[in-house]
Amino acid sequence: MSALHAVIMAGGRGTRFWPASREALPKQFLTVCGDESLLRRTARRLYPLTGEENVWVVTNAAHVDVVAEHLPEIRRERIVGEPVGRNTAPCAGLAAALVAREDPEAVLLVAPADHWITDEEGFRRTAATAMRAAAELAGLVTFGIVPTSPQTGYGYIEAAAGEEGPVRRVARFTEKPDRPTAEKFLAGGRHLWNSGIFAWRADVFLEELEASRPELAAACRRIAAARDREAALAEIYPGCEGISVDYAVLERSRRVYVVPSEFAWSDVGSWTALAEVLPADEHGNAVEGDALTLDTHDCLVRSPQRLAALVGLENLLIIDTPDALLICAKERAQDVKALVEALERRGRRDLL
Amino acid sequence: MSALHAVIMAGGRGTRFWPASREALPKQFLTVCGDESLLRRTARRLYPLTGEENVWVVTNAAHVDVVAEHLPEIRRERIVGEPVGRNTAPCAGLAAALVAREDPEAVLLVAPADHWITDEEGFRRTAATAMRAAAELAGLVTFGIVPTSPQTGYGYIEAAAGEEGPVRRVARFTEKPDRPTAEKFLAGGRHLWNSGIFAWRADVFLEELEASRPELAAACRRIAAARDREAALAEIYPGCEGISVDYAVLERSRRVYVVPSEFAWSDVGSWTALAEVLPADEHGNAVEGDALTLDTHDCLVRSPQRLAALVGLENLLIIDTPDALLICAKERAQDVKALVEALERRGRRDLL
Repeated sequence: MSALHAVIMAGGRGTRFWPASREALPKQFLTVCGDESLLRRTARRLYPLTGEENVWVVTNAAHVDVVAEHLPEIRRERIVGEPVGRNTAPCAGLAAALVAREDPEAVLLVAPADHWITDEEGFRRTAATAMRAAAELAGLVTFGIVPTSPQTGYGYIEAAAGEEGPVRRVARFTEKPDRPTAEKFLAGGRHLWNSGIFAWRADVFLEELEASRPELAAACRRIAAARDREAALAEIYPGCEGISVDYAVLERSRRVYVVPSEFAWSDVGSWTALAEVLPADEHGNAVEGDALTLDTHDCLVRSPQRLAALVGLENLLIIDTPDALLICAKERAQDVKALVEALERRGRRDLL
Repeated sequence: MSALHAVIMAGGRGTRFWPASREALPKQFLTVCGDESLLRRTARRLYPLTGEENVWVVTNAAHVDVVAEHLPEIRRERIVGEPVGRNTAPCAGLAAALVAREDPEAVLLVAPADHWITDEEGFRRTAATAMRAAAELAGLVTFGIVPTSPQTGYGYIEAAAGEEGPVRRVARFTEKPDRPTAEKFLAGGRHLWNSGIFAWRADVFLEELEASRPELAAACRRIAAARDREAALAEIYPGCEGISVDYAVLERSRRVYVVPSEFAWSDVGSWTALAEVLPADEHGNAVEGDALTLDTHDCLVRSPQRLAALVGLENLLIIDTPDALLICAKERAQDVKALVEALERRGRRDLL
């Protein structure tokens, strides 16, 4: 069988996790629970599948050193620094082109660095199925999380009618639905959450990218072939189209599959999403750090450096850092991004 | 006419203003608005009445130096340090005894250090009336604030039926009433808020104290007569009864008067009371320091050292200090005291 590689996409800015995440320290580098960063948890989840030596990380060039600190066991040349972010298609294309130079038929497991998965065994069982399918079917295999609620915040993957078993053909992708549609999806049983985790052979992905975005595929191959990778990245990458792998390839390809996945998963896209997966005390409060609560319920509290004394509160996000404090109603977590933009407009670069 | 003296009672602990106030820095030393502490505002309000040279401050012995820092113009021997707090009766008795040694018929204006009065002219007009009445009538004169709402948090002074004019005989004192009673008081027009500000002649007050609490009066005279005042305070004061001037003297005396007072006044007994008197922006937020608000209404925010970013909040008190953060629903401001007690029980003396 071909070699197995893993590609961790660690290019996110994580503005929704301000003020804990900053430009210098995006969400994937945060420790949100326990004592390991999301990035390190992701990597350690993958090591048993591919071995440490076959794990790649694509990240912002400014964060290459941070990645190396979090994952000292990864070979430095497998940490790829993007001079600018260009969404997931160039990232996945570049990784495929780099791996293809070692072994064109190698199978890549492509996963975001900042997702929440606690059931590691369940994840790896699903990943083994997906990687085997990618090798054998020469298709693009997606991980489709079996929905447990009518989520409107996720994209959905619809399996083709009549498909059964652990690997199913995909009929179509659907953007974030409204609530009634999400409820129909949940009841129908053919729609799965698009986890953003994929498996494919390097050559197969490059073929499909070639078909839909020939310029992007050529750019990726040129960078991978360059003797001075850093220089090639700096020269070529900024000119690449910024586009998602879903839109550039998956929604256009005719050989896309989905593996229904039962492990508990969250993309922790906001503080509120994090609050939903963290363990809480008997009052529903998820507390990290030093807090004293009185009649306070269903709050997420991060106060690692000072006492947070909370009286009569409900459904709040309270995130304390040395130079900025966020207090946000849970249902307004999406507005944290707007806050960061407002800070940017006000020239508060010290806080970004 | 006799000399006029002012006595500032600055012995409060101010636990309701945690975490801004601490044992080392009670409320009277806080700057809650503008750039002067409540103590300094109180003193500067009194100077035009009595002159700086006739202002006394009674405070905790541990705070004598802090008082001297806030009020460098006050003569050091007029800052009296209580070795322990014993409520207002011993404080007022001691001040009267000290002043009486200079001039038994001197009139004292006795005022708490930590009240909120912005209409300084109005205050001084009332004070002049009260001091003149104290001198001429040889009575105990209270400042009764004309109520503007049915407050249940204040004690009330009831003027005797049929009394008119700027100085009225008092019929009785009433503790904090329930809501229907407070509404009756407001409608009736004879009840005034007990401001805790008083005027009396030194000799008259000592006579009345003598009548109701002879031991306490004797103790005050002994301390005032001692050559080494500090030693006498340490020896005698801890044995004094801890009792309020209202209960020990005013409620028992037959020569008590009230001056109806129209100036805006608050005892700022809690963060919420402070929020009610501070100027607010168009969303009802009273902000001091660095804050960025989004759909946030009617909050009190003190964040002098860091950015506080607030999204979707309402009616909260947010008090940020270097080592402790308080977030409290406005209607729960009274529970801040319970919080401080909880910290004490948990041995968090570093935060008290």
